[in-house]
Amino acid sequence: MNDINLIEFGRVVRQLRKEKGLSQEAFADLAGVDRGYMGNIERGKSNITLSKVFQISAALQLEPAQIFHRMKSERDLGTE
Amino acid sequence: MNDINLIEFGRVVRQLRKEKGLSQEAFADLAGVDRGYMGNIERGKSNITLSKVFQISAALQLEPAQIFHRMKSERDLGTE
Repeated sequence: MNDINLIEFGRVVRQLRKEKGLSQEAFADLAGVDRGYMGNIERGKSNITLSKVFQISAALQLEPAQIFHRMKSERDLGTE
Repeated sequence: MNDINLIEFGRVVRQLRKEKGLSQEAFADLAGVDRGYMGNIERGKSNITLSKVFQISAALQLEPAQIFHRMKSERDLGTE
């Protein structure tokens, strides 16, 4: 997997998770995702399913739209 | 697969696709998704990958955030 979208998604998930003050392990448990797998998600190495996107959003107490909106904001900042 | 999120995602994709005046076949071709598979996505029967979410968004000329925002709006309307 080498999709820039997955890398950006993972980076934003990591940022948001840290902003919530959660360790990767605690966050994986909250989201119901294997801890090792969560590492892969944050590194953009896993092309996760839509269901997992919803699980991750719920664990962050966010709407999926907010995660994707953050991705777009980061991208727009990067190209300014 | 019987995830309400997938059903709502598929429903919104179908709405947006129709608003663009695209047939399911033309839309599947644009998104680079098998035509039969696109039917499953719109019926919420496929737990698609994040990469495909981006392909579908691009084919709709939308940001993923806009699709998820629409999902939330429809849900909020439904619970009023």
